[in-house]
Amino acid sequence: MRKHQAGGDSIVPKIKRNERIAVLARVLPGHPWQIFTLRHFSELFQASKATVCEDIAMIGEAFRTFHLGDLESVAGAGGGVRFLPKPCPPDSAAFIRDLCDTLSEPDRILAGGYIYRNDILYHPQSIRRIGEILASLFSGERPDFVITVETKGTPVAIMTAFYLGCPVVVARRDSSVTEGPLVSINYVTASSGRIQTMSLSKRAVTKGKRALIVDDFMKGGGTARGMQELLKEFHVETVGTGVVIATREPAEKMVSGYTSLLILDQVDEQNGKIMLSPADRFLDKV
Amino acid sequence: MRKHQAGGDSIVPKIKRNERIAVLARVLPGHPWQIFTLRHFSELFQASKATVCEDIAMIGEAFRTFHLGDLESVAGAGGGVRFLPKPCPPDSAAFIRDLCDTLSEPDRILAGGYIYRNDILYHPQSIRRIGEILASLFSGERPDFVITVETKGTPVAIMTAFYLGCPVVVARRDSSVTEGPLVSINYVTASSGRIQTMSLSKRAVTKGKRALIVDDFMKGGGTARGMQELLKEFHVETVGTGVVIATREPAEKMVSGYTSLLILDQVDEQNGKIMLSPADRFLDKV
Repeated sequence: MRKHQAGGDSIVPKIKRNERIAVLARVLPGHPWQIFTLRHFSELFQASKATVCEDIAMIGEAFRTFHLGDLESVAGAGGGVRFLPKPCPPDSAAFIRDLCDTLSEPDRILAGGYIYRNDILYHPQSIRRIGEILASLFSGERPDFVITVETKGTPVAIMTAFYLGCPVVVARRDSSVTEGPLVSINYVTASSGRIQTMSLSKRAVTKGKRALIVDDFMKGGGTARGMQELLKEFHVETVGTGVVIATREPAEKMVSGYTSLLILDQVDEQNGKIMLSPADRFLDKV
Repeated sequence: MRKHQAGGDSIVPKIKRNERIAVLARVLPGHPWQIFTLRHFSELFQASKATVCEDIAMIGEAFRTFHLGDLESVAGAGGGVRFLPKPCPPDSAAFIRDLCDTLSEPDRILAGGYIYRNDILYHPQSIRRIGEILASLFSGERPDFVITVETKGTPVAIMTAFYLGCPVVVARRDSSVTEGPLVSINYVTASSGRIQTMSLSKRAVTKGKRALIVDDFMKGGGTARGMQELLKEFHVETVGTGVVIATREPAEKMVSGYTSLLILDQVDEQNGKIMLSPADRFLDKV
């Protein structure tokens, strides 16, 4: 194995284009939206900035050809290059249809008409794909952070935020002692009609930012509405609401303008049937 | 932009080596440990398997040179190629030392001597790095899944599992109705001496598997011990325990053989000082 040291002397062998491309194509997509300076790579490879630019152009072309995202040059003092996830990730529709089939397996039905879905919601690769798709639907809104309420929505929120290049903030249903001063609100879940409490650490959110709400499931929309109300207390604008599954009924949710990947019509416990379908946007694509 | 279709006809332009390398170096590290057949890429690129093998060898060489992981050929019927994360990710020690500095900022001290750390534990890039490092420390144990207990350990567990190529299972402190039949145990937290309950869905775990316990914080080790006990009920072996921060005292934890990235000596509320240090393994490296 050849030894390489950034900033090494003339004994360091020249890094070939193929190698530079392999490294760039590995590093940049690992940090969506993060700007890397040309100088960083120029020093790493001991190559001119013009050479690195050519490498980047080639990679961008390959990524676009295979629908793997894009590389964007950013001009100016803080400029450089960054990876932008694909606005419409490859095979999204096929993935969502597969997900729908998997979640519709009859043996997922639990007492009370719930669907067992933790194997999906806690599998890194399935939530990576879900997060990538949710991020692609909302990246145009340029949220500053993703918010969810504990607990099942957290992994999806994390992966969505990964592809948006932003942090996650988690509202709590109980007030945890380890988060410092909290802002709490009461809200009503549309499904149960019960009054619940939701809290957010004062340190977690800054006034004037833009938030994307992400959750795994929506029935009446009371929880999402609660998050909106909580964010208002912080003078934060909600720029969108994305969920993995929303129920068809009630058609009127307590929030408007939400986006769901899957629509749940009914869980027929008696006949062991889950009636779940992909959202319209995933139906007419190959 | 050139159009590419896998399985296209002779009008499809030839995919050049640079482009194949960019695509392979992007796709393989996005799926650690997952085997891709040579045929898959051979068809995607309309190139011979020998050509794809050459591409892979070049990428592997570049990844090794820059400490970015490895590509491994897997022989046999289910064979192909897969990405293995680096046993010692680049700049781990520097990252852990930075993390230590960040978490030691005096304004993180909360009433009761707690440290505010949600901004780290819910930031995709910081937990990605933490997960990569934890995975590298335990990949030799080949766990079948990662287990954590809700809620703060979940994001780190997810990212650790991403780099181990395995799923996550989350034990609950309350018994959620949406997970089906549960196995519950009582356990005692070493710090408070209180009896608590921890539950795991019967569907989540299969007998005979190997588990890695991951959590964000360990004081007495009672929670980790509880997870071990719970796993015994499922006839699952615990192959390791990894945490982000462990307290120096008590030195005798209720679990043996845990690994911690950071060691907390003391939070001095009165003088606004957090005494936190990287674990020994991260101290003597550059």
